[in-house]
Amino acid sequence: MKKTIIDPLGSKEIKVDEKLFKEFGLKKFKKEEILDHYFFKRGIIVAHRDFDKIVKRINEKKPFLQMTGIASSGHYHLGHKAIIDQFLLFKKLGAKSFFGVCDIDAYVARDDKKIPSMKIAKEYAVSNMADLLALGLSEKEIYLQSKKESRYYEFAFEISKKITENTFRATYGHMNLGKVSANLLQYADILHGQLPEYYGKMPSLTGIGVDQDPHARATRDIAKRLEYDIEIPSFIYVEHQSGLKEGKKMSASEPDTAIFLSDSASEVKQKINKSFSGGRPTLEEHKKYGGNPDIDKAYEILKYHHPDTKFINEVYEKYKSGEILSGELKKITIEFVNELLANHQEKVKQKKEIAESIVYGK
Amino acid sequence: MKKTIIDPLGSKEIKVDEKLFKEFGLKKFKKEEILDHYFFKRGIIVAHRDFDKIVKRINEKKPFLQMTGIASSGHYHLGHKAIIDQFLLFKKLGAKSFFGVCDIDAYVARDDKKIPSMKIAKEYAVSNMADLLALGLSEKEIYLQSKKESRYYEFAFEISKKITENTFRATYGHMNLGKVSANLLQYADILHGQLPEYYGKMPSLTGIGVDQDPHARATRDIAKRLEYDIEIPSFIYVEHQSGLKEGKKMSASEPDTAIFLSDSASEVKQKINKSFSGGRPTLEEHKKYGGNPDIDKAYEILKYHHPDTKFINEVYEKYKSGEILSGELKKITIEFVNELLANHQEKVKQKKEIAESIVYGK
Repeated sequence: MKKTIIDPLGSKEIKVDEKLFKEFGLKKFKKEEILDHYFFKRGIIVAHRDFDKIVKRINEKKPFLQMTGIASSGHYHLGHKAIIDQFLLFKKLGAKSFFGVCDIDAYVARDDKKIPSMKIAKEYAVSNMADLLALGLSEKEIYLQSKKESRYYEFAFEISKKITENTFRATYGHMNLGKVSANLLQYADILHGQLPEYYGKMPSLTGIGVDQDPHARATRDIAKRLEYDIEIPSFIYVEHQSGLKEGKKMSASEPDTAIFLSDSASEVKQKINKSFSGGRPTLEEHKKYGGNPDIDKAYEILKYHHPDTKFINEVYEKYKSGEILSGELKKITIEFVNELLANHQEKVKQKKEIAESIVYGK
Repeated sequence: MKKTIIDPLGSKEIKVDEKLFKEFGLKKFKKEEILDHYFFKRGIIVAHRDFDKIVKRINEKKPFLQMTGIASSGHYHLGHKAIIDQFLLFKKLGAKSFFGVCDIDAYVARDDKKIPSMKIAKEYAVSNMADLLALGLSEKEIYLQSKKESRYYEFAFEISKKITENTFRATYGHMNLGKVSANLLQYADILHGQLPEYYGKMPSLTGIGVDQDPHARATRDIAKRLEYDIEIPSFIYVEHQSGLKEGKKMSASEPDTAIFLSDSASEVKQKINKSFSGGRPTLEEHKKYGGNPDIDKAYEILKYHHPDTKFINEVYEKYKSGEILSGELKKITIEFVNELLANHQEKVKQKKEIAESIVYGK
């Protein structure tokens, strides 16, 4: 039977498919593995590999690692904030945390139109760093990919011996040398925390999009082949927040699809007002049949970012029943986002200088 | 017309062929480019690309760069000493010098039987470092590939964007990921000295074997494509010293083909006595027709290592005329090598500790 190949660097919207569980070995959460947090309760985190190892460490109050990396190929938007929030959740639960701002990855895996030089990737890195610090990560939990210790790079190169040309091509569909480099670094990102020079062997967690599973499997295979005694890394799979337009991902290159953390109140208002709605074409129909919050982008923003589950459940029901109109839902969301961003932007200002020194300091 | 593909990592004995000059654009030395040194006078350095740029700098007493790297995949033998001697020549002529002891390269580009881990590559690196220091390189001219500044690794990854899959495959005949890594590092080795963070733009020289020309051409092409303003690197092509057996290269994996810098006097004696000779089968014939120094391995050792050209010319003529017998030539060579190695091994002892601290210190 031909296996479904899913593109780990792709931009397709992928729904969680039973096939991923059956063919690719992803696991659904057992009751006792569902953490008391809205990311789990609201179905944002949808599947896992070996998450039980992490739950055990949390329950035993023992340390574990978490690693997440984002290429610095643009300014952060709300989709990134959701990833960072999830990272902060596990930090709170005791994780030793590594957050990579991946400037080399941004440059080598993208075409020149998007990231023409390392200089540009570093400019975005400053912006990303400031956001991360403002959101509550500490300086020692963040690293710039181009400014790591030599041990990390050595490890990335070592890994090149643990994946064959055939496996690479089967996983990613090409042998583009920039993407080979980006992948070697990503394997090192996920695995290096377990080297003796860092925290040593312990369960480690990385959150990724469902579409990135081939990459996760390749990383786990590599972990088994290394000379170092490490735990096979655990993964949780996240259904990423979608774009503001129908059928589009949030994308830094299409600004109208995403709300950036640096957007002004008026930009936010405009973008949300123009976003795809689950409301009915007429007021009358809406009141009669109700809206569809499950496809409504304003509601999705609340689902991914509003911490008050009771409140958003109410909004959900009232929108579905037609009691709340699309315009009202949008207004609630605009107010929520603008308060969030105003607070955030205030903090970012205070972090700019540190962010610059991390990227450009020696 | 089909181009001759020559294997840059190969182990074939390759004679300098007119084809290399005609098809591949290698240049012969003009009279004014031949330096007053036995490497040039004795035809050890056989060809070049852009060596005129270096000669100009030498004549103007202006600095230039030189970079050489050797994978730490074994202990050094006399073939390595010739490369290092050549490096010392250009150091004396004013080069800013980088000598890479390439442990990552040794591990990732070789199979596990030869170099099963980075640990083994580093053990050889200690031995190599001690030899380099004993031969007269300074600590700041030598680097261990796995302990460079992050800028160097960043650059190696950046370069991955400047060579296509097609070019890579055409140059090296494969896309083995370990060898991809080794090559990215080698490009960075040769080019990084010209980055603004190091010496900046200036002519640079690297000595390589004639069989490595495809790699040199790939490196020059990459240099043209970088965003950084650097000089296209110059290369000189060396006819490497051959092995002690007929038709074999000096090889660390076949100890009888090479005299190691750590060999004892009795090992040297035994190896040279067993080496391939250009002498005649019988004493009578030898006296009548003379020997052939051009294929004699003992003579070749003198040619590559004995600094006194007058002396070796005499030996050459006397051997050719039959005045010197093979046994006598071997005896001269054994004495010469043993004095050389005794001195060297004495110095190596004093350098072991520094070598270890370079490799294992923080």
